[in-house]
Amino acid sequence: MGSRTNKGMSPKITGELLRQLRHAMRNCKYFSEPIQAYIVPSGDAHQSEYIAPCDCRREFISGFNGSAGTAIITEQHAVMWTDGRYFLQASQQMDNNWTLMKMGLKETPSQEDWLISVLPENSRVGVDPWIIAADQWKTMSKALSSAGHSLVALQDNLIDVVWIDRPERPSKQLRTLGLEYTGISWHDKITALRAKMTERKITWFVATALDEIAWLFNLRGADIEYNPVFFAYSIVGMNSIRLFVDLKRLQIPAVKEHLQLDSPSKPELNIQTFPYESVYTELQAVCAALSPKDKVWICDKASCALTQVIPKSNRSPIPYTPLCLAKAVKNETEIQGMKVAHIKDAVALCELFAWLEKEIPKSTVTEISCAEKAEEFRSQQKDFIGLSFPTISGVGPNGAIIHYRPLPETNRTLTMNEVYLIDSGAQYIDGTTDVTRTMHFGTPSAFEKECFTYVLKGHIAVSAAIFPNGTKGHLLDSFARAALWESGLDYLHGTGHGVGCFLNVHEGPCGISYKTFADEPLEAGMIVSDEPGYYQEGSFGIRLENVVLVVAAKPKYNYRNRGSLTFEPLTLVPIQVKMMNTELLTQRERDWVNDYHRKCREVVGAELERQGRKQALDWLIRETQPIV
Amino acid sequence: MGSRTNKGMSPKITGELLRQLRHAMRNCKYFSEPIQAYIVPSGDAHQSEYIAPCDCRREFISGFNGSAGTAIITEQHAVMWTDGRYFLQASQQMDNNWTLMKMGLKETPSQEDWLISVLPENSRVGVDPWIIAADQWKTMSKALSSAGHSLVALQDNLIDVVWIDRPERPSKQLRTLGLEYTGISWHDKITALRAKMTERKITWFVATALDEIAWLFNLRGADIEYNPVFFAYSIVGMNSIRLFVDLKRLQIPAVKEHLQLDSPSKPELNIQTFPYESVYTELQAVCAALSPKDKVWICDKASCALTQVIPKSNRSPIPYTPLCLAKAVKNETEIQGMKVAHIKDAVALCELFAWLEKEIPKSTVTEISCAEKAEEFRSQQKDFIGLSFPTISGVGPNGAIIHYRPLPETNRTLTMNEVYLIDSGAQYIDGTTDVTRTMHFGTPSAFEKECFTYVLKGHIAVSAAIFPNGTKGHLLDSFARAALWESGLDYLHGTGHGVGCFLNVHEGPCGISYKTFADEPLEAGMIVSDEPGYYQEGSFGIRLENVVLVVAAKPKYNYRNRGSLTFEPLTLVPIQVKMMNTELLTQRERDWVNDYHRKCREVVGAELERQGRKQALDWLIRETQPIV
Repeated sequence: MGSRTNKGMSPKITGELLRQLRHAMRNCKYFSEPIQAYIVPSGDAHQSEYIAPCDCRREFISGFNGSAGTAIITEQHAVMWTDGRYFLQASQQMDNNWTLMKMGLKETPSQEDWLISVLPENSRVGVDPWIIAADQWKTMSKALSSAGHSLVALQDNLIDVVWIDRPERPSKQLRTLGLEYTGISWHDKITALRAKMTERKITWFVATALDEIAWLFNLRGADIEYNPVFFAYSIVGMNSIRLFVDLKRLQIPAVKEHLQLDSPSKPELNIQTFPYESVYTELQAVCAALSPKDKVWICDKASCALTQVIPKSNRSPIPYTPLCLAKAVKNETEIQGMKVAHIKDAVALCELFAWLEKEIPKSTVTEISCAEKAEEFRSQQKDFIGLSFPTISGVGPNGAIIHYRPLPETNRTLTMNEVYLIDSGAQYIDGTTDVTRTMHFGTPSAFEKECFTYVLKGHIAVSAAIFPNGTKGHLLDSFARAALWESGLDYLHGTGHGVGCFLNVHEGPCGISYKTFADEPLEAGMIVSDEPGYYQEGSFGIRLENVVLVVAAKPKYNYRNRGSLTFEPLTLVPIQVKMMNTELLTQRERDWVNDYHRKCREVVGAELERQGRKQALDWLIRETQPIV
Repeated sequence: MGSRTNKGMSPKITGELLRQLRHAMRNCKYFSEPIQAYIVPSGDAHQSEYIAPCDCRREFISGFNGSAGTAIITEQHAVMWTDGRYFLQASQQMDNNWTLMKMGLKETPSQEDWLISVLPENSRVGVDPWIIAADQWKTMSKALSSAGHSLVALQDNLIDVVWIDRPERPSKQLRTLGLEYTGISWHDKITALRAKMTERKITWFVATALDEIAWLFNLRGADIEYNPVFFAYSIVGMNSIRLFVDLKRLQIPAVKEHLQLDSPSKPELNIQTFPYESVYTELQAVCAALSPKDKVWICDKASCALTQVIPKSNRSPIPYTPLCLAKAVKNETEIQGMKVAHIKDAVALCELFAWLEKEIPKSTVTEISCAEKAEEFRSQQKDFIGLSFPTISGVGPNGAIIHYRPLPETNRTLTMNEVYLIDSGAQYIDGTTDVTRTMHFGTPSAFEKECFTYVLKGHIAVSAAIFPNGTKGHLLDSFARAALWESGLDYLHGTGHGVGCFLNVHEGPCGISYKTFADEPLEAGMIVSDEPGYYQEGSFGIRLENVVLVVAAKPKYNYRNRGSLTFEPLTLVPIQVKMMNTELLTQRERDWVNDYHRKCREVVGAELERQGRKQALDWLIRETQPIV
């Protein structure tokens, strides 16, 4: 799990800002005619999930800073669409100028339907074409046109017009990654990309997703908190590699050498560098030279602005780029790195939990201080870079807020009377982690144990599932829910997401969710999370999350030679037995728990021993006693 | 299960027919310019799954008569696309003029991609606009246009041009259904439809699906084998009901009275009748009188011809019509009727199986004679109308052909050494049945028992599943496969389909499949099949199918007051214990089997007793002994 979350729980006062924005909407300095509505999506020009402060426009205008949400402002209304994870948070962060649209509820209109219901005839609806994805533009534009309105691309972002003290776009130092971390050189990645282009008769590929560009060039940045990426674009042809990035960043000798800027090994591996902002004009130049048969690959989630530079007849939009697919299947070096990162991460968490056991009775540990302590323990591990998302640290009722992040005004003390949920992860140079554990340091109630056990059963059902090669992750989602459903319970989020290797903690194109039907089939080497939960509003929250690796399985038979897959947990942190009602577990589930704990003890125990962390080792040994 | 299947296993000789068709494709009598390809879809003008002999154009030209398949003929090629159920059958029924395209395999091109790869520049691709659905037309037309070709609607069907002895369109006598069978009068169905139209601001609704029209008017026909429907269209407005049907059929006094043709109870319930063929001109007349704001509902699967009569600005295409949705949720009367029909059906099957046990040792029973005997026993039951699909009756290797239908040249004798699969069902005036049982009359092998038990586990996992209100059926599909997957096995068909009430054995909009993402959420009163299987090619086939009713479940908790659902089996035919490896079953699965068998014994036993069918009753009692 992990998302941008609640920075402040008191609503932002937005009356004056909205007045200014509406003035700009009517102001003909920015365009020929006034617009009747303005759409403010969440993202940046790369459709990133996590964004830099300069791109937090939706948060700036509304106060709501969840990871997903779209604001629409008309003369009369200011309306926010967000999903079930953020209903509570959004309603707390936004003032009375705003109306919340709860996505996923039957009665909630789509943005298109709502706009059509409130707009006067022949309205113009504005949006920044760099921020809206091409596929969203298409849907929205079509719906508005069919009702007599029009969607208009405004070159000036109207939020920026009213955002006086908007921060600068970050440009932090780049880090080069050698073969010992990446397993494949950027040369070979370019060559593999070109082979796929040749196979599909594609002449150019436009890369816009920041993690894909970082992966392709074996570079990392620090422009966006938690995500080791940097602002860039790339355009790759059969004999050309163009990289668009703040050129100052390439002056560092290590980077220069890594990219062979001064001495390319082969002409076709010569990287031409351009300023970040010139991607638009360079893509125009590339497109001006296209022949009618040339095809250009661009992700259908890339910005409308860049997509529309490519003539429609040359454009070949794809739901997932070849980089996204290649990046998702980790190579042996990356898998090894991810394993090492998860062992280090487990060491830090064993330390944390051993420390908590001693400290909680003193009533000195809070949600915030516990999150800080977790970061402190992690930072002691080799190659630690930072967190992979803001730590979710919730006691009692706060644990039921799915993307809760503790704040001074909500901060609760950890006690022996309440359930504690901690969802946290880190970036190490060798890998990215994301783990959730739910603990009780006193005596959990029968209901808490019951719910925990159903969640555990769901976690195991996914983790131990064997399924044919080519199965899409969404077909496994119900396995995680079956035990909860049987008792009339459920959780309102997906079960798993792809995880990058020293990259974004959320990545496509695979996942495990009832919602995602566009996911790509799971294959060996992919890495996803397995994280069912249960949330009892006002009382407690439970989530159990491991990061798991897709591996070949060898069942008894092999129908049609398709081969089978299963998951191997990379996360090796004990699951609290005290929270389990072991009578509700089947023998196979008990065996799974015991096998998992044995592996935790062996692998993480050896590392704790090596690091001389005696107290954590004692805790680990106690917490991994077999259940009977 | 149930589909059109293999009538003849020797291929049809198609050289001369294809020569004539290609001549027609070049022949300017039928259109202004020659066409380079001609598409022959499966369906009729109502996009029916089962079709009348006069509509079997794809079968006529190719010999392949499976329920799904599309033929495309070019000057050089004759190509057939069909899915995994029919790979074997299609390859046996088509001669060397034809190439089989196996849908679902990665390397198989789509029809569009294939056409684009073989067509000369600026080609014209012809299709009968009555036979192709509007959504398919759109996809195909778009793909062809983008490659410089065009899709052309040909008024003359070119197959009909070369089909000298094409049969007449059937026009069998209509049957009226009273409230005791339907629960709701057609007047009330019209009123409910109009309420939905008002709610969505729709002025007209065009009904084109035969089962929806039969359901709406509480009429049944016999124009299509196995499906009690009749050729008709209907156009419903707020003050107008137009029924398009061979007018001779309305001369019968009972039908006249049922439809109140001479004395409508209210003016707005006056049915205007028109000849079947005049739907096109009448819809043109309706559309000519539309105001710009008027909206017309038509299913996006309706024919391209009829859809395009409606001006695009007035057209409101929907994936499922309100009739389809209303028909899927059975009322109390229909549920009661379905239960009664399933008890009668179980009586017939108990008789069959008891009879088989005695006859098989004599080696006199074949796949065909067994299917006939099943029909004979069914025909002895009250209100029997006919079969609901061609009986699938397969011994040993024939059972592994998913939609096998026995033929004289493939007919095998039932023995004590092979597994026997029978998938059959009937139409009774009170309901429709569809049941599959797999039996062994000697001693099954350990592998046969193992596979049977995995299939049974899957069947139970779906049947006993508890899930939240609003869950779509496709989220349950993996439950049916988990046990097979765990051993590396699987089956290449969906798990369940909607079942009509004295209507089509396959109906939308709900189902249980990994493929269907457009299914509507399950709700109480819906009826679907639950039919996992396993097919060991060349050896045996296993399938276990019950028809199940969606009912409210009352688990311990009720998260967010959403309510829960589960299934109640309507099919009450024992599942052969001899085929089970009971050691592989959990205690809960054993309990399910025992509970199910107890219910079979109580309910069907009482009816067998009432009907004085002693031998079958003895068989039932023996076959429903509890397992321990």
